[in-house]
Amino acid sequence: MKVAEPTVERLIQYYRLLIQMKEEERKVVSSLQIGEILGIKASQVRKDLSYFGEIGKRGVGYHVNRLCLHIENILASPKVWKVALAGVGNLGTALMGHAAFQSYKFDVDALFDVDPEKVGQEIMGVRCWHVDEIAKVMEERGIEVLILAVPASAAQNCVDKAVHSPSLKGILAFTPATVVVPEKILFYRVDIFVELEKLLFFLKEREGKH
Amino acid sequence: MKVAEPTVERLIQYYRLLIQMKEEERKVVSSLQIGEILGIKASQVRKDLSYFGEIGKRGVGYHVNRLCLHIENILASPKVWKVALAGVGNLGTALMGHAAFQSYKFDVDALFDVDPEKVGQEIMGVRCWHVDEIAKVMEERGIEVLILAVPASAAQNCVDKAVHSPSLKGILAFTPATVVVPEKILFYRVDIFVELEKLLFFLKEREGKH
Repeated sequence: MKVAEPTVERLIQYYRLLIQMKEEERKVVSSLQIGEILGIKASQVRKDLSYFGEIGKRGVGYHVNRLCLHIENILASPKVWKVALAGVGNLGTALMGHAAFQSYKFDVDALFDVDPEKVGQEIMGVRCWHVDEIAKVMEERGIEVLILAVPASAAQNCVDKAVHSPSLKGILAFTPATVVVPEKILFYRVDIFVELEKLLFFLKEREGKH
Repeated sequence: MKVAEPTVERLIQYYRLLIQMKEEERKVVSSLQIGEILGIKASQVRKDLSYFGEIGKRGVGYHVNRLCLHIENILASPKVWKVALAGVGNLGTALMGHAAFQSYKFDVDALFDVDPEKVGQEIMGVRCWHVDEIAKVMEERGIEVLILAVPASAAQNCVDKAVHSPSLKGILAFTPATVVVPEKILFYRVDIFVELEKLLFFLKEREGKH
């Protein structure tokens, strides 16, 4: 089943909301309520969930526990992913401290930097190597996902080195640089510039309406 | 004209690529070339651009300069946006240092934090105030956009205070926390957790194919 990216994003949002609701010991939720909290149309919520086989009961809604488990099964990886982080500057450090990286799904197993003050140290409990050793260390440790938080000017060099590790499967890049990546590696970018531009575009559109 | 978010995202990607090409003094580019670099189908590129009135010449393509100017006019805000940043930790500092924030479109005019070591100081040339003063300072300075880089637990409190400023129009949040925002404020989230989950989902899908 091929699932489009916006659908995956919404599924993840439903999942996170349902986990919250579970923690608040909430039992049922309607598509309308889900939609209102997340800013998604109720009809879209129903469409998404029914596509994956969950039909809410009219006038009652969805069982929080069951729906949560159901979406978890769609999303969940059957394993913990071994992750490495390249670039232990402000951004890298912020990412390391982010709740997402402390999830049970990720095991941040190696850090890479070029700063002699960082190389050879343990940072937040994880060993830091020189970027020159990235392929060797990633292969030895079977690291599949590389989080790229190096400066734009260092991104291509870092990727070129990392792709020599046969264990590498995907890169999540936090850099605005254009990076060439072999086709077998999944490359995914979080581009802060694009996000800011989007916000401004929609603000401008809104202003035009007033 | 209502433009969907994925379209805006692609337009911004075209725009950035064209700026690069301009710098490399490239004169023409085809939809196929644009598509290959950005990982977008050529037919989608043509569709997007023709929607905004740009038709490439068969066998030649688009004039880089003209296309760049054209997209700029669609995207561009007629002004510099006054921006404030709440949360001057690792993430906030990384954002301040990001090229996007040094663009001509943003003027980072105020910082907010609760750390007594930061409040009252100038950080990277910008004054830092206590979050308690956020509404007053934002109103005085006419700040329209708030970048939220505070810890999840502080996000709602910070937003509740900021929305008292009548100048506030949009929030770009880098927090996984669910935040309630008045409808008149545009709220846009960059959720690192969701981005990571998406990467893993697509990795898992890929693995399923092998």
